[in-house]
Amino acid sequence: MTQWLNRPMTQLRNLRLIISYDGTDFHGWQRQPDAPTVQESLELAIERILGEKVQVYGSGRTDAGVHALNQVANFKTACKIPCKNLLKALNNTLQNTVRIKDVSEVPNRFHARKDARSKTYRYRILQAAVGSPFINRFVWHYRFPLDIGRMAQSAKLFEGKHDFTSFAAADASVAQALLPLLRDKAETTLVRTIFTSRILRRPRTCVLVYEVTGSGFLHHMVRNIVGTLVEVGRGKLDPVDITRILEARDRTLAGPTAPAQGLCLVKVDY
Amino acid sequence: MTQWLNRPMTQLRNLRLIISYDGTDFHGWQRQPDAPTVQESLELAIERILGEKVQVYGSGRTDAGVHALNQVANFKTACKIPCKNLLKALNNTLQNTVRIKDVSEVPNRFHARKDARSKTYRYRILQAAVGSPFINRFVWHYRFPLDIGRMAQSAKLFEGKHDFTSFAAADASVAQALLPLLRDKAETTLVRTIFTSRILRRPRTCVLVYEVTGSGFLHHMVRNIVGTLVEVGRGKLDPVDITRILEARDRTLAGPTAPAQGLCLVKVDY
Repeated sequence: MTQWLNRPMTQLRNLRLIISYDGTDFHGWQRQPDAPTVQESLELAIERILGEKVQVYGSGRTDAGVHALNQVANFKTACKIPCKNLLKALNNTLQNTVRIKDVSEVPNRFHARKDARSKTYRYRILQAAVGSPFINRFVWHYRFPLDIGRMAQSAKLFEGKHDFTSFAAADASVAQALLPLLRDKAETTLVRTIFTSRILRRPRTCVLVYEVTGSGFLHHMVRNIVGTLVEVGRGKLDPVDITRILEARDRTLAGPTAPAQGLCLVKVDY
Repeated sequence: MTQWLNRPMTQLRNLRLIISYDGTDFHGWQRQPDAPTVQESLELAIERILGEKVQVYGSGRTDAGVHALNQVANFKTACKIPCKNLLKALNNTLQNTVRIKDVSEVPNRFHARKDARSKTYRYRILQAAVGSPFINRFVWHYRFPLDIGRMAQSAKLFEGKHDFTSFAAADASVAQALLPLLRDKAETTLVRTIFTSRILRRPRTCVLVYEVTGSGFLHHMVRNIVGTLVEVGRGKLDPVDITRILEARDRTLAGPTAPAQGLCLVKVDY
């Protein structure tokens, strides 16, 4: 028996990571067979450094092509490496599209997903005749005119507690149908609370930013909200339609799903 | 005989392009066998759209990995396609790391390289403990402390007319040795005039910017100046050394060549 196996579980350290990534070349956060994901990159880097297989828990999945400025994750390890050394080793090991901004030891009970109280996402739309090679990985280049006043007015209407069935991906509705069979009911109801939802214009740029903070988000929810706001901005929907669409709980009434590349997870609060 | 062949040469239109590109995946501007270059991408896109082989003349070469915000180029064509249609067709045909910002018809005598009167380059250094996946393609991530005041003071010393032998790549010295054999002597002397040379700090960021405008630049000249300024910033050289290094005309005295990825051609004036 090695010393490691004799060590009681309570002696494992719980380490929290703050992670930035360019999601362009990843098939999202969550590990999957035969496709590169951020979770897999982290687990392989940690295994390579610590010589120990770990499971990294993220605050939530991000889709293929979606970015993160401050994704939060945690993992348990028997290793005693100082946090600042692990930070350096991880950044030396990982591809430079993933950067670890912080490693810190947290109480054993901390869980990056279960303890998350709110998340903030930003979605960027580039309003210019011609795209930019310098930001095209991180924006939706939408060249047609948008009425920002109408979009801002509509964005506000998402604030509050709503059933977001109309803005959920089809798989979320499937999950709801399976609700009686599932244990983790908080994850499968389609009701979410949005604290702030607003349109910002970046000064001296052609970049329009939608920023939303909420208790949690359904699969594709932010991208479906953005797709719907763009329909309002180009005059295909009215701001008053937002309330109607929310109440109808019908995905077919909302706008299309905005492209993944404009979306970025900017903050997770605990 | 087709109509095209009968058309006198003076009827060819001279079209000027303003081009942005992310140089990361290119082996520089200039066409070369077996490696993707910006010039080749443009020539292939134009050939595909116009059905006509053309030669695109850039204001100058950029090295592998170097970017451009407003590279200028021109080419002659028999085709009568309106400029705004060609702009759209080019942006639809080119990969999105190359964007055409403008196409306009210019006098037949205009030549993007020969008529250039000055060029402005910016070099970005990211001063942060950890790099950023969102800008790492466009900066030199230098994590150690730099004395910006000393660098700013040194940057000024490059202004004026100097022999830049100490800051030229080895191939430029070779070109000088061949001077008597070459026709285009303006290109082979190592004397250049720098109009402005300064260090800027981007507000609310960790990005240090070196901006230089000059009559022309030798191969690797901006990157060698930046490498030398960093030696000053970290205390290995003094600002007074700059004048000494310029006067010595000895490449071995200056600092190393800064990485290509931080450099961007921002403007060409005519």
